Order: sequence, then C-alpha cells, then structure tokens
Amino acid sequence: MLVKTPNGAQDIRAIWMENGVVKAINQRALPHRFEIVEIDNSEALAEAISDMTIRGAPSIGAAAAYGMALAAIRGEDMEDAADRMRSTRPTAHDLFYAVNLMLSERERLPGAADEYSDSIVARCKSIGEHGLDLIRDGSKILTHCNAGALATIDFGTALAPMRLARRAGKEFFVYVDETRPRLQGAKLTAWELLNEGIDHAIISDNASGHYIRADVDVVIVGADRIAGNGDFANKIGTYEKAVLARENGVPFYVAAPISTFDSSLLSGDEIVIEQRSPDEVLILDGVRVAPEGSDALNPAFDMTPSRYVSGFITEVGLLKPDELSKLLDTQ
Amino acid sequence: MLVKTPNGAQDIRAIWMENGVVKAINQRALPHRFEIVEIDNSEALAEAISDMTIRGAPSIGAAAAYGMALAAIRGEDMEDAADRMRSTRPTAHDLFYAVNLMLSERERLPGAADEYSDSIVARCKSIGEHGLDLIRDGSKILTHCNAGALATIDFGTALAPMRLARRAGKEFFVYVDETRPRLQGAKLTAWELLNEGIDHAIISDNASGHYIRADVDVVIVGADRIAGNGDFANKIGTYEKAVLARENGVPFYVAAPISTFDSSLLSGDEIVIEQRSPDEVLILDGVRVAPEGSDALNPAFDMTPSRYVSGFITEVGLLKPDELSKLLDTQ
Repeated sequence: MLVKTPNGAQDIRAIWMENGVVKAINQRALPHRFEIVEIDNSEALAEAISDMTIRGAPSIGAAAAYGMALAAIRGEDMEDAADRMRSTRPTAHDLFYAVNLMLSERERLPGAADEYSDSIVARCKSIGEHGLDLIRDGSKILTHCNAGALATIDFGTALAPMRLARRAGKEFFVYVDETRPRLQGAKLTAWELLNEGIDHAIISDNASGHYIRADVDVVIVGADRIAGNGDFANKIGTYEKAVLARENGVPFYVAAPISTFDSSLLSGDEIVIEQRSPDEVLILDGVRVAPEGSDALNPAFDMTPSRYVSGFITEVGLLKPDELSKLLDTQ
Repeated sequence: MLVKTPNGAQDIRAIWMENGVVKAINQRALPHRFEIVEIDNSEALAEAISDMTIRGAPSIGAAAAYGMALAAIRGEDMEDAADRMRSTRPTAHDLFYAVNLMLSERERLPGAADEYSDSIVARCKSIGEHGLDLIRDGSKILTHCNAGALATIDFGTALAPMRLARRAGKEFFVYVDETRPRLQGAKLTAWELLNEGIDHAIISDNASGHYIRADVDVVIVGADRIAGNGDFANKIGTYEKAVLARENGVPFYVAAPISTFDSSLLSGDEIVIEQRSPDEVLILDGVRVAPEGSDALNPAFDMTPSRYVSGFITEVGLLKPDELSKLLDTQ
C-alpha cells in the first residue's frame, strides 16, 4: 500500500520481516499517527496480535508466521511458540492455519513465512486485477468497513480494485461508510484511500441508502465467510447495503479470496453470528452516550443472502453466485 | 412524560410555565443528568432555544410562545421579543407560526401560550391512541431517531403509541437505532423508554437490517415533512429502514400530526435535503475519528417514497397513503 510520509510516498506492507526483525504498521495509532513497530521476539509479537497493533485475519496469519520465524531464529521451543501464537486471538482461522504450516516448515524459516505472506499478497493483487473493469472514470463506489491492505498485508480485497484502478490513472469517488460501532471505515478505509490519492468522503451508515438511491454506481464489500450457496457473512450493516443496492438497481460485488468460501456450509443460515460487547455501542472513545440502565445489542456480523450479490471478485476471476458450486466442487 | 426521580416517578412536560416562570428539561444534560432550567426573561429563553437546551420543532414552538409570554409579563416591546425569538433557529416552521400567533393574541398571554402548548400535547396523545392497536403484548418494535416527548412537549409522535401501550400494561420490546451522527436514539429515545419502563436495547444503525430480517414486527418513525403524495422526509437513515421493512414484509408506520403534511409539495422530490457540518460525522465528543485530510458528507434527512409506508398515524386516525389526498383536500 502507498503511505505518504514527509520523505514522499512509500509502498509498504502492513507487516514484513527485514534482517531478522518483524516490522508492522501500528494499526492502533491510525488514523492519527503513522508508526512502524519493530519486534524481535515471539512474546512481543504475540502481544502485538492480542492488543490489535496488527489486525485483520490475513495480516494476523502473516504475523503468526513471522512469530514462528522469530522463534526459530532465536532457537526457542517451536511447540511453545506455536501455543503462544494460538492463544492470541481464538477465532481467526488464518492464524491457526499459518502456525500449523510453519510448524511443518520449521526447517525453512523465515523463508516459508515470507512465502506464505507473498502468496496472500499475490491473491489480493489478483482480486484487484479481476475487479478492475468494474471501476470506470467517474464511477461512484460505496464500500463498508475496512476490506483493505491493513487487514490483508497488502492491496486488500474490496479495496484492491480501487487501488489498482487509481494507479492505472482512473479518477473516481468512494463513499466510505463510517461503519459503527468500531468505525473501521472512518478510521482505516479513509486513511488507505487518502494515502492512495483516491477521492472519497466518509458518511454515517445511515446515509448510505440516500446515496445508493441518488448517486452510487457500484457497491464493493469484503466477506468474512461465504457459504456454498453464496450467502455470506460480513461486517454488520452489509446486509442493509445489499438490499438497498438491489432495490435501486445498483450492482453489488463481494471481493474475497477462495479461502473465504466454506463449502461445508450449505447456506448462510448455518453461519453463527458473534455478539460482541454492548460497550462498543454504548461508549464512544471513553464517553458513555446512552443513559445508565439502557443496554445494547451488538452483533459483529450479519448474513446477506446470495440473491443480492451481482458477483464475487476472487483471485480466479469474477464469479456469479450460480457459478460457485462448480468452483467449490473442484477445490 | 414519566421521569424517574429519587422522589418517585413524576409526569412532566419538556416545557411549561408556572407562576410566571418558564421551566424546561435541559436536553443538553441528557441522558446523564436530569435537570430543570428556570427562565424568567425572553433573552434567556431565546438563548435556551439557540443552544439546544430546548430542541424539537414542537417544543421549540412552545418555547417561543412562552418567550412571548415572558415578554408580555415584563412589559417588553412585543415586536422586539418576536424578532428575538425568530432569530434563534432559522428553519423551524413551528417557531415562526407560534410567534405570529402570540403576537395576534398578545392581550391573552400567558393563557394563549398555554393553550398553544396544550393543543400540541392533545394532538400527540391522540396520535398515541390511534396507534395503540399496532402494539401487542410481545411486539418487537424498531424506531429511529427521537420522535419523542422531549421533542413535542409531551407523548411524542412515534413514541406516543409505545408510551400509551406501556401505561395500558402491555409488555413489548423496542430496538432503538442509535441514530448517527447525533445519536438522538441512544441519548434521548433510550432515556424516554427507560423512564417509561419500556424494555429496549440500543443498536448501531448498521444492525437494524439484521433485526428487521430476524425479529422486528413493526417499524414506527416520525416525520419532518410529508408531501401531498405521502413521500416524506425524516432523519437520515429512515429510508434505509423503510426499504428493509418492505423487503422483509414488516409493516412500516409514520407517526405525525396533520400539521406535518405539506400539500404544496406534490412529491418528495421537491423536499430540499439540508446538509449539515461534516464535523458531526468526523468528530465524536471532541475526538476526531477520521484522518486529517478526509472529508465527510452529512445529509440531515432523507426522503422515503410513500410506497414503503403502511400507514400514517395521525391525530385524526390511521391513514393509508392513498387516503391522504382526500384529507388534504378538506384541510
């Protein structure tokens, strides 16, 4: 991803390894301060995952792989290091996959960690290339949450086509849903777009319907998990935008790598929706906004039925929902 | 409205006059502190409107009427007092109407101000009675923004049926959209429901689609202005909820007094949407959440076409959109 610095624009990843040291963008400091943390031991790396200095499932997977590389370099017990990584964030699938892969490749570290990371970046870049034609000069795009480079080491999923389109010289405009309750749109997506020189405006989530009706040409979002029939789970609010897009004849695309497809799930009804702490809704930057005594409900994700999806932008191409079953059969 | 205090529940209005002094709930102090301000001169009353100690178009209208009453009691120049009231909030129709009415009734103040206020309260109570049957034991209701007693002196519009249903002993549950950017749902609607003993939970605006799909039986909102064909403007985000309700077969009702209907507008396309300061989106309780350099768009209202409306709850009864023209012809 491009990052504007006092010394000009740099092209960097969310996390990488250099001379035996792991470097990562401190995502807790964004959007106000751009800061690279340097980590030289697996304990500190595990802490950086736990405290969300590094976030986003693919970026967490890469971080865990590099944590294993640090352990190998320092001659630590690899099984202990693996347990330490696994205990950071209990639900991120990529993390467990990466740790097990690095255990089986322990003789090839840190090279295997770099390869793992490179493969994710290559898939995201390919998603960007397959989605490039959806963005034209003058397009008005709406996106939700942060399906960007910060979360996926580089390029992003929903943001990958926008990034490549801008670098190819296209001029377009992005409506950025602020994405309550955690505001990943306002905090992270806006920061990425600003750094890539992409024209954009942040809107309250309530305003997306107004703009989808009046002005938006295409909606592009990411996905956390996609069932065999194309129903998918993504950040809370995605379902609303999908319904509003179809109601107004606006194409709605989901950008995600093939690894997000879970053919063990026949439909989205089997996807369990995580409920997070009510405090994310009730307390903003330390200030309670609701009366004492009022509670909140805070589902982290919602499920969008496949009938609202115009297509899936993947590293193997643009797929219609009814083309998924063929792809998944050959996986 | 009922307000729980250390001395038990009181039944009070958002604003009233007592022994020549105006008393009002300080809406700036909510939801954290319940406080009655006492105002004995028209300058201080104008200031209380300007700084939003008193807010909501009908409550502002009553405040301006009482401001005129204070001026009359103190023997002030009534035209000067009228100008002072008119300069507080330039767009609230009720304010100008109330000031002109009080000028024409200057010999009957403060009695005329009380009558004006009473007539608004009576209309809201009547809205509550006409909407009462929409709420059953066990109903799950969703509402947006604050169409409550604080804004309308007493009872509210969308909240009036809920208030009367609860007082009639019905048990039901309300999903309260937090209503970004100004959070009137989390701050004011939740406070009103809490004080009336109505079971509720605050949700991020992004979660309303998820719950409309899964659990909501009826959506009830207010309206700022309703065109002759039933299209209406209301707080930003209302359109989204209306589309989601219809998509899921959930009835969607608009509660508003007849004075909200503007038969001079043939359709909602003639309603001008106010754009408010981007800072309401970018800055939360004094803390900027977006990167420096990112801008925001902040429409205060959106327009919902009448085809999404199941009915209008008014003081003259429950009206279908296609029954409006007859009513408006006889106005």
